[in-house]
Amino acid sequence: MTEEPGRKDSELGHPHCSMGCGHKDDKASLASSQTASFSHQPPSTPASKEVWKKGGRMFSILLAVHLALLACTLVSSGAFEKIAVHDYDVFFLLTVMMLIVIIWIIFYLAGTSRCPGAILGKDSHAGPIWLRGGLILFAIFSLVMDVFKIGYYSSFYSCLSAIKIIYPIVQAIFVVVQTYFLWVSAKDCIHVHLNVTRCGLMLTLTTNLAVWMSAVTDESVHKAHSKLKKNMTEEIFRWLLKVGMRSSSEECNCNSQICQIFKNGYFWLYPFNIEYSLFASAMVYVMWKNVGRFIDHHSHHIQRLKFRLFRRTFFVGIMLGLIILVSGLGVLILYEVQVNSRTESSKKSQALTMYYIFNIVCLSLMSLVCIGGSVIYRFDKRDMDRHKNPTRTLDVALLMGAALGQYAISYYSIVAIVASTPRDTISALNLTYALLMIAQHTFQNVFIIEGLHRQPPKEDYKHESHQKDLCGLTFVNINAVSLRVPDTGSALAAGAASGTEAMHASDLVRSLTAPKKMNWRRKFLREISMFLLLSNIILWIMPAFGARPQFDNDTELNFYGDSMWPAIVDICLPFGIFYRMHAVASLLEVYIMS
Amino acid sequence: MTEEPGRKDSELGHPHCSMGCGHKDDKASLASSQTASFSHQPPSTPASKEVWKKGGRMFSILLAVHLALLACTLVSSGAFEKIAVHDYDVFFLLTVMMLIVIIWIIFYLAGTSRCPGAILGKDSHAGPIWLRGGLILFAIFSLVMDVFKIGYYSSFYSCLSAIKIIYPIVQAIFVVVQTYFLWVSAKDCIHVHLNVTRCGLMLTLTTNLAVWMSAVTDESVHKAHSKLKKNMTEEIFRWLLKVGMRSSSEECNCNSQICQIFKNGYFWLYPFNIEYSLFASAMVYVMWKNVGRFIDHHSHHIQRLKFRLFRRTFFVGIMLGLIILVSGLGVLILYEVQVNSRTESSKKSQALTMYYIFNIVCLSLMSLVCIGGSVIYRFDKRDMDRHKNPTRTLDVALLMGAALGQYAISYYSIVAIVASTPRDTISALNLTYALLMIAQHTFQNVFIIEGLHRQPPKEDYKHESHQKDLCGLTFVNINAVSLRVPDTGSALAAGAASGTEAMHASDLVRSLTAPKKMNWRRKFLREISMFLLLSNIILWIMPAFGARPQFDNDTELNFYGDSMWPAIVDICLPFGIFYRMHAVASLLEVYIMS
Repeated sequence: MTEEPGRKDSELGHPHCSMGCGHKDDKASLASSQTASFSHQPPSTPASKEVWKKGGRMFSILLAVHLALLACTLVSSGAFEKIAVHDYDVFFLLTVMMLIVIIWIIFYLAGTSRCPGAILGKDSHAGPIWLRGGLILFAIFSLVMDVFKIGYYSSFYSCLSAIKIIYPIVQAIFVVVQTYFLWVSAKDCIHVHLNVTRCGLMLTLTTNLAVWMSAVTDESVHKAHSKLKKNMTEEIFRWLLKVGMRSSSEECNCNSQICQIFKNGYFWLYPFNIEYSLFASAMVYVMWKNVGRFIDHHSHHIQRLKFRLFRRTFFVGIMLGLIILVSGLGVLILYEVQVNSRTESSKKSQALTMYYIFNIVCLSLMSLVCIGGSVIYRFDKRDMDRHKNPTRTLDVALLMGAALGQYAISYYSIVAIVASTPRDTISALNLTYALLMIAQHTFQNVFIIEGLHRQPPKEDYKHESHQKDLCGLTFVNINAVSLRVPDTGSALAAGAASGTEAMHASDLVRSLTAPKKMNWRRKFLREISMFLLLSNIILWIMPAFGARPQFDNDTELNFYGDSMWPAIVDICLPFGIFYRMHAVASLLEVYIMS
Repeated sequence: MTEEPGRKDSELGHPHCSMGCGHKDDKASLASSQTASFSHQPPSTPASKEVWKKGGRMFSILLAVHLALLACTLVSSGAFEKIAVHDYDVFFLLTVMMLIVIIWIIFYLAGTSRCPGAILGKDSHAGPIWLRGGLILFAIFSLVMDVFKIGYYSSFYSCLSAIKIIYPIVQAIFVVVQTYFLWVSAKDCIHVHLNVTRCGLMLTLTTNLAVWMSAVTDESVHKAHSKLKKNMTEEIFRWLLKVGMRSSSEECNCNSQICQIFKNGYFWLYPFNIEYSLFASAMVYVMWKNVGRFIDHHSHHIQRLKFRLFRRTFFVGIMLGLIILVSGLGVLILYEVQVNSRTESSKKSQALTMYYIFNIVCLSLMSLVCIGGSVIYRFDKRDMDRHKNPTRTLDVALLMGAALGQYAISYYSIVAIVASTPRDTISALNLTYALLMIAQHTFQNVFIIEGLHRQPPKEDYKHESHQKDLCGLTFVNINAVSLRVPDTGSALAAGAASGTEAMHASDLVRSLTAPKKMNWRRKFLREISMFLLLSNIILWIMPAFGARPQFDNDTELNFYGDSMWPAIVDICLPFGIFYRMHAVASLLEVYIMS
């Protein structure tokens, strides 16, 4: 609902929009502009169209807010045993939502997108190849998870409500359809059926978020039960009653080996499904922002950037990152084994010490590297890229917002440790870990945001421009100066054709004067982003696949009690985990752009 | 952190900025622009200044986020008895924050704002007179509250930690200094000491939010204890121990009559202090957005609007609103008396029935009126105002965001009522109430947002333009058409001088063709906004001064349990209460603009 005065996109009557796919708004627009040209009244179309656009956006936002709140209410109520909302109520809602989304997507692919003039331009920033690649990877794991879920529930089909089986089947169809849809249409800027498309996209977004909430809650409940109440078998039995079985007869237990494999398998695959939902949400949001947008000419220059993974680096970043990654995997496995063995208390504290030390080393290195990267950016003379780019705006907002989750956990930890009396080694390590977590998130955000706002390097231009003569150069140089003085992004965008030429020239001047220094800096930036990328992957894997030092360490649990601390961690940790995966995607972009 | 391509504001070297108050950035900017004009290199100043601006904004945001999280952690931990964080820890943090803010404000008023070239323009949208008037009103009540607090704690000075007395004293100074600061400087667009000012403003914002959090928590704890555990005197005694007294000796009890008056008085005045903090936060945020902004010429036209309360209305809206307001006050007093008497259960259900029926009638009327208003806007031919306006963007975001609080409560209520078995009259009334609450918030938001985005009426122009001849009219009319076609807000803003003239003309044409219809519509809109304004005041008063049907009605408490339902209500209701007061301010603006 923010205002963007310099927007290039609008829903004015456009020659292409008014023909075909008879959308009544377009017809009305055509009619009223004809009226305006016959009579000499001022054209009221822009104003009324603008009202309608705001109305369309507002309506789709309201739809999303209400659906999201309803889903949130049901999911959070369903998580508690004593509340009379069951998980099949949640599954029913989600199944209905997914079915509606599937129908809309088919309508979009078969109808809307085939209208003449439906897609006038594509947003080259939206849905980059690595995001779509990641989406497909996660989609495949999600499908495997759905197969496992179907297998698990089929093991005791007789004593289940049908929705338990229907849900994973519908989810599998939903994942396939949505992944195809995003692969094909992520860059679309649609110009027909505006309101239907906005509502459809918002419904898709809400459905993905609801699936994410449901998965996160389900996983948290599972973890909490298996961690905190491992020896209370009765409790587990009651929980299984709620989660899996409606009757308590013997045949409804998951006793067979294959059933156990299915069950463990689908819980191990949850993290991928969670990331899938979030990746899809981000892409759908960008599509929603792009509905009715006209694309400037300049936006296409980024397409020239090729994805070359191993280009002119010293491999130091990759090597260091891989060492961290492999040793992190080792630490995680050792930690899980030692914590879950539950034979001795000393083993547990050993495992915690090891976990904290590894994380402290890793976070310190990452913080130092981020500071180094920010210092390099300080001396970098590349222009800032200030063009409209919904994808980047969303990236930055998500990085800042998702970091709040980890910040909150760390602050609560710090208060608990400082206020608690027994100050042993583990407390000291935990405190250092929490402080470094805050520092590392902050420095990394600063580094990534600076990196995302730089103009991509223009190596190609260097070769092209050598043919230009000095006269043309001086002319365009002056042009560049005059363009910069008003310093409005829109002025640059309005004169996009000449602006691009101006950029060529200013880049040429710079590349002629100091080509060597630039290369050194760029190489360092590449090393840094590759190292950070690999480190973020291991910091994603650890909490996503079950490491919960927050519960294995008793300090916070004793300080905040059994209800408040799990609530804090269960609400905030999913955002922290999402932050890591999102940082990986953003760092890949920084790597490619530097 | 959003991108605004069409921004008029920037931190380019400006002739006024570079002299006086020797800010090193300004000097650097001057030096580098001189270099650029001597050598023929492209000017790198915009880019590096832009980096620095982003850096300054980012740093102040990070500062605010970390302080807010720390305060949130301490406040939420301090609210629980069993957690070893005491309220004097919170008071200590808040006192330190307020002292730093007071020092910064004095530095700003005495130093920054007196620099030559510090304030090049004023944002006429920021800090309108009704917002500043409201701020002063709430400030006065806050001061009275502080006096009551000082009186209350002075009654048993001997057994208190000193911070308990220091806190209200510092708060009183803070309120006085901040109110003066906002009265004087709310419209400033500052151009020197950019980073210090940004950090200072963010610190002020965070301090206000922390004070708000602390007040809301304190009030919730007080309400929860006096409502839920009225007959458990032991519990109250323990709570009093935590809130007010550190030793349990007899003299530390609040037994004297004057002490009781002080105590009740300050709890009754809490709602005003809460609103004060939120109003101040909103104004400080707009000031922060305006740091380093250059103001367009067009923004000044709104200053012509005069605040005339009783202009050409039928008084129907005001009359109906006053009836609702007075009867609402009666209902509130009856409700409080009957619910708190606790002699019979039937009286309580009578009170609840009365409360729900009043609210249902009120909300239905308001919803209908909002729908009517939106329909009138559909036929309104006034142009949309699409100029940059941080105040309005914030207003819309706050309306949408704060409504989420009431939405969440209503959705949880609905789920609980639908899933619970005993379906009596009160449940039916409660369900209707929750559904109408959702509907009314939605319709009201749509109405207010549409109203805020309209161009203000230009009655003055009508008289001026009558002298114009037809030739001039036709010319400007064509001008208007040509200006609209690219439909970029920035194009309109860039040609502001001619654009304003174009608006004159198009408005003139419209006012010549249909002056009567416009007047009818406007009068209706005024009636509607006045009625909604008064209704929102009573809907603010009811929860702000203690009506809690959410706890008096047992359905939700039994369904969600004693820990989850209070958590939901205590977190969400403050936003719901804030929504009402914010809607009042926005409706006043809609009233004036229609």
